[in-house]
Amino acid sequence: MIDIKGTSRVIIENVQPQVDQGLYPAKRTPGERVDVTADILSDGHDHIRAVVLYKKEKEKTWQQTEMLLKGNDQWTGFFFVREKADYVFTIKAWVDHFETWYDGFVKKAEAMVDVHVELLEGVAFLKTLAGKKNDVLADAIQKLEGAYESAIDYVLSDDFEILVHQYPLVEHETQYFKELRVVVEHQKANFSAWYELFPRSASLEGNHGTFRDVIRLLPRVASMGFDILYLPPIHPIGKVNRKGKNNTVKAEDGEPGSPWAIGSDEGGHKAIHSELGTLDDYKKLIEECKKHGLAIALDLAFQCAPDHPYVKEHPDWFKQRPDGSIQYAENPPKKYQDIYPFNFETRDWKALWKELKSVITYWIDQGVTVFRVDNPHTKPTPFWQWVIAEVNEEYPDIIFLAEAFTRPRIMASLAKVGFTQSYTYFTWRVTKSELTEYMTELVNGPSRNYFRPNFWPNTPDILTEYLQVGGRSAFMARLILAATLSPNYGIYGPPFEHCWSAPRDPGSEEYLDSEKYQVHYHDLDRPGSLKDFIARVNEIRREHAVLQTIENVRFHPVDNDHLICYTKSAADKSECLLVVVNLDPHHTQAGWVELPLDVLEVDEDHPYQVHDLLSDARYLWNGQKNFVQLDPRVVPAHIFQVRRRVRSERDFEYYL
Amino acid sequence: MIDIKGTSRVIIENVQPQVDQGLYPAKRTPGERVDVTADILSDGHDHIRAVVLYKKEKEKTWQQTEMLLKGNDQWTGFFFVREKADYVFTIKAWVDHFETWYDGFVKKAEAMVDVHVELLEGVAFLKTLAGKKNDVLADAIQKLEGAYESAIDYVLSDDFEILVHQYPLVEHETQYFKELRVVVEHQKANFSAWYELFPRSASLEGNHGTFRDVIRLLPRVASMGFDILYLPPIHPIGKVNRKGKNNTVKAEDGEPGSPWAIGSDEGGHKAIHSELGTLDDYKKLIEECKKHGLAIALDLAFQCAPDHPYVKEHPDWFKQRPDGSIQYAENPPKKYQDIYPFNFETRDWKALWKELKSVITYWIDQGVTVFRVDNPHTKPTPFWQWVIAEVNEEYPDIIFLAEAFTRPRIMASLAKVGFTQSYTYFTWRVTKSELTEYMTELVNGPSRNYFRPNFWPNTPDILTEYLQVGGRSAFMARLILAATLSPNYGIYGPPFEHCWSAPRDPGSEEYLDSEKYQVHYHDLDRPGSLKDFIARVNEIRREHAVLQTIENVRFHPVDNDHLICYTKSAADKSECLLVVVNLDPHHTQAGWVELPLDVLEVDEDHPYQVHDLLSDARYLWNGQKNFVQLDPRVVPAHIFQVRRRVRSERDFEYYL
Repeated sequence: MIDIKGTSRVIIENVQPQVDQGLYPAKRTPGERVDVTADILSDGHDHIRAVVLYKKEKEKTWQQTEMLLKGNDQWTGFFFVREKADYVFTIKAWVDHFETWYDGFVKKAEAMVDVHVELLEGVAFLKTLAGKKNDVLADAIQKLEGAYESAIDYVLSDDFEILVHQYPLVEHETQYFKELRVVVEHQKANFSAWYELFPRSASLEGNHGTFRDVIRLLPRVASMGFDILYLPPIHPIGKVNRKGKNNTVKAEDGEPGSPWAIGSDEGGHKAIHSELGTLDDYKKLIEECKKHGLAIALDLAFQCAPDHPYVKEHPDWFKQRPDGSIQYAENPPKKYQDIYPFNFETRDWKALWKELKSVITYWIDQGVTVFRVDNPHTKPTPFWQWVIAEVNEEYPDIIFLAEAFTRPRIMASLAKVGFTQSYTYFTWRVTKSELTEYMTELVNGPSRNYFRPNFWPNTPDILTEYLQVGGRSAFMARLILAATLSPNYGIYGPPFEHCWSAPRDPGSEEYLDSEKYQVHYHDLDRPGSLKDFIARVNEIRREHAVLQTIENVRFHPVDNDHLICYTKSAADKSECLLVVVNLDPHHTQAGWVELPLDVLEVDEDHPYQVHDLLSDARYLWNGQKNFVQLDPRVVPAHIFQVRRRVRSERDFEYYL
Repeated sequence: MIDIKGTSRVIIENVQPQVDQGLYPAKRTPGERVDVTADILSDGHDHIRAVVLYKKEKEKTWQQTEMLLKGNDQWTGFFFVREKADYVFTIKAWVDHFETWYDGFVKKAEAMVDVHVELLEGVAFLKTLAGKKNDVLADAIQKLEGAYESAIDYVLSDDFEILVHQYPLVEHETQYFKELRVVVEHQKANFSAWYELFPRSASLEGNHGTFRDVIRLLPRVASMGFDILYLPPIHPIGKVNRKGKNNTVKAEDGEPGSPWAIGSDEGGHKAIHSELGTLDDYKKLIEECKKHGLAIALDLAFQCAPDHPYVKEHPDWFKQRPDGSIQYAENPPKKYQDIYPFNFETRDWKALWKELKSVITYWIDQGVTVFRVDNPHTKPTPFWQWVIAEVNEEYPDIIFLAEAFTRPRIMASLAKVGFTQSYTYFTWRVTKSELTEYMTELVNGPSRNYFRPNFWPNTPDILTEYLQVGGRSAFMARLILAATLSPNYGIYGPPFEHCWSAPRDPGSEEYLDSEKYQVHYHDLDRPGSLKDFIARVNEIRREHAVLQTIENVRFHPVDNDHLICYTKSAADKSECLLVVVNLDPHHTQAGWVELPLDVLEVDEDHPYQVHDLLSDARYLWNGQKNFVQLDPRVVPAHIFQVRRRVRSERDFEYYL
C-alpha cells in the first residue's frame, strides 16, 4: 500500500544546471565552477540543510559541498571541476533537528525562557552525533550537562555555533531523483584565438598558393598571438558546374572555383587539392604549426560537387529525381547546381554515417585536432550527436566549431548535442544595447551551460555594413569587442588586417572579388596593417586570466550611447580589467562612466589608477564617476587595468 | 554501433504543459482546452509538420490535432478534454516532403522556372500517399499527368493547397520521448463559491448554536448563490490548555475554546462536538445542504489537543521530550500548548498515515465531498501526495482546498501533488499593480497548469487593513474582485455581510472578539447587510460563463491608479464582460478607460452599449476611450456586459 520513503519530508525540485531535463550534459573546462541551484522545501519551520554531491562519473564515492539558502526556498551551492573528465552531481537534503533545536534554543535563551529541558535535548542530539567516540562532542556533552547558567553560555558561544555547523544531523534525507552530468573538456574549448586564411592566396609571387607558402606565414600568425589557424577546405574542387569570380554561375577556364564545392575525379573528402601540395606537405604544415603553438583547423563541409567520387560510388546517398538527375541544393527558386547535399534519409544511412565519421578520423590521424564545421544545421542533429560522441570516445581534445548562422533554437540544439564552440550573432550586434543584451543572454541565459560562443567580426561570407562604412577604427573596435567579450574569437585574417571594406554590391555582405571564388595575392606586411594592434590585444588576452572566461563580464552605465563600458573581474577580486569602446567609428565621443566601487575593490576616499594596457597611459581616477574621451582616429578603446593603491608596511604607498 | 533511428531528422524539445518534467500531471476540468507548445526543429529548409497526439489514458488509439508554427521554431496546438478522466498527450513531427515540394513548386512556377520534373515528383508523392485506392488522389494524379500548363494551374489552385494540407506525408517521424499526463477533474474544482460560518454562532437565542440552527440558515446561504458551506472543525474541543477569548492563554470556565484544538475525552477527529449535535444531525445537515444545492466542507486540521484520544493510544505519533512531556507546537519563543502536532518522522508512520486517511474516508462515507485542509504546509508534502491519490482512487469528485498561507514554492508544491484548490495571496493584493501582477502570474505563469486559486477577501484569521479602514465600499470592492477575477472564491460570511472591521489590536489582522475563541449571536438579517449585493454578484457569476474560467482575463489601461479595469471574454468572442472597480473606498474616482476594440468585437464607427449588470444602467460608448466615474458611497464597481449593435434582416438595429 505505501511504498515510498514516508519519513523523508524534504522535496528537491528544479535542480540546475540541467540541460533539457538532463538529456544533455552541462559543459565546463578544468578549473571552472559549477553553480548548482535548486528549490528545496519542507513542511513547517524546521531547518533544512542541503549538500551538493559530486564525483567523477567513474569514481565510487561522492564528495560534497554545502548549499546555502538564498531565500524564497531557493538554495545555491557550487563545486569546482578540476580535471578533464565526466562528472555527475546531485543534491541531498534533510530536516536537521540539531540545527532547528539550536536556533530555537538561542531564541528561547534570549527571551529568558526556561531551557532545562532544551539542554537535555541538546545532550541527546550530541550523543546521537558522537556515535562511538568523538572528543569534541564528548566535551560539548560535558559542558551541557554542567551548571545551568554556564551551559547556556556555552550553547550561545561562537564555538558552539561552529560545532552545530560542523556536525549536521543527517536523518530521513532526500536525494534528488536523478544524477546530472557535467562534461569537462580541455582548456582550448574555452579559450582560443582563430586566424582564417585561404592557402591558395598565401603565395606572394602570383602563383597558386601552397601549404609551403602557408608555412612561411606561420611565424607571422603566431607572432600576432593566434593559436588556431583555420584553412577553408583543402580538398579537390569540383570541375562540374564550377562557380566563377564573384559567384557567377559558370567559371571561365582556369578559374579555381569555390573550395566548398568538394570533390572531383582527383578525389573527395580524404584527398588534397593538388595545387596546394601533397598529404606530406599538409602533415609538414601541421608539424610546423605545432612548433609555433598553432593548431590547424580543417573545414568539414559535408557536401559534394557533382564530380565527387561518392556520387558514382554511392548514388543512393543522394536524392534521385524522376528524370534520373541528382537533386542539387536549392532554396527555391534559387539553385546551387555545383553542390549535391547528402540524403540523410537514405536507406543506406548507416554506411553514410560511418563514412563521414571516417573522414573525421582520417584527418585526426594526420594530426588535425580542430574542425570548423560548415553549415552543420543543414545536416541532421542526431547525426552530429552520434558522430561527435563517437570521435570523442576514440580521440581526446578534439574541437568542433559549429558554423550555424541560423535560428537560435537550432544553434542551441547543435551546441547541446556536442559542438564545442559555436559561431554567433555577435557579427551583427553593433550597438551598445545590442551587445549588452546579447552578452547578457549568453552569460545569464540557460545556454551558458552548453553554448560556447566564438565571436567573429568578419568571415569570408560576412563583411558587415559596420565594417564597410567604418574604416580602420571600426575594425579596431570590433576586434577589441570580440577579443575581450568572448574567450573564443577569430578573424578572417588578411582582409581584416588591412581593413578590406568593399562589398560585392551595395547592400551585400559579400566581399568584392571574394577569395571564395578567386586567388588573391596579399602583401600582408605593407603599411597600414593592424598586425601590431592585434598582437597587443592577443598578448593582453594571454596575460590576463580574466579575459579567458566569459561569465565574469559586467556592464556599466555611460552617459553616451556611443560608448560601451564593461569590466572583467576575477572571482577572488585579485584583478579587474575595465574596457571602454567608442562604437562610433567616425567621431570622438566622450562621457562619464559610472562604476560600482565594489567591483573595482577600490577605496572611495582615495584616487585609484587606471592603466591603459593598449597605450600604456595611466590616469588617476576618483570615486564612481570618471570621464572618458576616445578619438576613433587614434585608438577607439581603452583596456584599463584597475590598480588599487595599497599601503606598504613601511607606510609607502604604491599601486598594485 | 548505431542504435538510434538515424533517419528521423526532427527534434522535439520543451514540450508544455509539463509540470516538473512530467512528474506531476497538468490539471483541467471538462470542456477546458489544453494548449500544447513545443520547440520543433530540423535541419535545412524542409517543411516540418507536427501533431499533438492525445487520448484518455486507458484508451488504445490516439486522436490527433495539427500544430502550427508560431515562428522561431516554436509550435503550438491544442485539444479539448471533454470528460472527467486521466488523459495523456505527446507530440509527433516529421519532415513533410510533399509539403516541401509543394512550397518549392509554387515558388518556381511563380518564377516561371521549368517544372516538368517537379510535376513528375508531385505524381510520385501522390502515388505514395494514395496507397491502394483513393479517388481524390487518383484524380489529382490524373491532373498532374495531363497537359503541362493545366497541370501547373491545378497545382497552384486552392483545391490543391487544401489537398496538400489534408494529406500529410508522414515519414521518418519523431515522437517526443515521453507521454505527459493531464488529470481532468470535476467541474466544481474550477467553479465554486464558498460561505464560511461558525455553527456554534448559528443560534439566535443566546444558546450554543447547533447543526439544526445551521439548517435554518441554509435557504439564506443558498439564496445568496453560494454552493459550498464551510464549517470550521466540528469535533470535540480539547479541554486541557484550552484558549480563552481573544486568544488568551487560559480559558475561563465555560469558554468554548478554539475548534482547531481538536480532541478530548469526548473523542477525536471522527467524533462530533456534542454541543453541535449528533452524527445524525450532521448527516441531516448534509442532506438539507444538498437540497439547496450546497456541498458541505469539512475542516481537516491534523493536529491534536493534549487530551485527544490519539495521545494516549499512540504516544509514538508525537514527539516525546527528555522530561517525559510531549512536544507542543511552537515557533520559538512562542508556544502553543493547546496543540500537539503529529510527528511524521515516527517509526510508526505507516499506521499514522493510514489512520489519517481513515479520517477522510470516514467523513466521505457520512456524505462530505469537500475538505478545507488547515495548514497543510505543516505536514509533509509526500503524505498529501499519497493520501489525496488514495482517496481519489476510491472516491470520485472530492475537493481538497489547501489553506497554506506560506511561501510561494511550498504553495505550488502542495498544488502539484494533488490539492484541488488553494488559498492565495489575493487577500493582501489591494492596489491595481498588485492585483494585475498577481493575476498575470496566476494566469500566464507555469502554475496555471496545477494551481487553482481560491480568492478570499477575509477569513477568521485575516481581517485585512483594507477592510478595517475602508468600510462598506471596501467590502463591496473586494467581493467584486474576488468573485470576478477567480472562478473559485469564498467569504467568511457573517462578518463580511455586516462589514465587521474591528481588529483585536491596532496593527493586528485578528478580529476583535474573534469567533475562533467565543460564540457570537448574529442577527444576520438586520439592516445594512450586503446580502442582496452578494446574491446579485453570484447570480451574475452563474449566468455568465466567462466568469467561470480564470485564463480569459485581460487588463486594460485607465488613467487613474485607483480604478482597475479588466475584461473577461469568451474564446469564441460570443460574450465580453467588462469590470471596472474603484479601489479607493473613500473618494469618488473617475478616469478614461482604454479598450482595444478587437476584444469587444465592436465596430469602431458606431456606438456600442455597455450594460451594468449590477445597477441595470445602460450607457452608449464610442471608440477606444470612454469615461467612467465611481462613487464608493453607492457601488464601487461596474460589471458591464458589452452589447454590440447588430443589424437585423429587416434593417432594424438592436443591441445583442
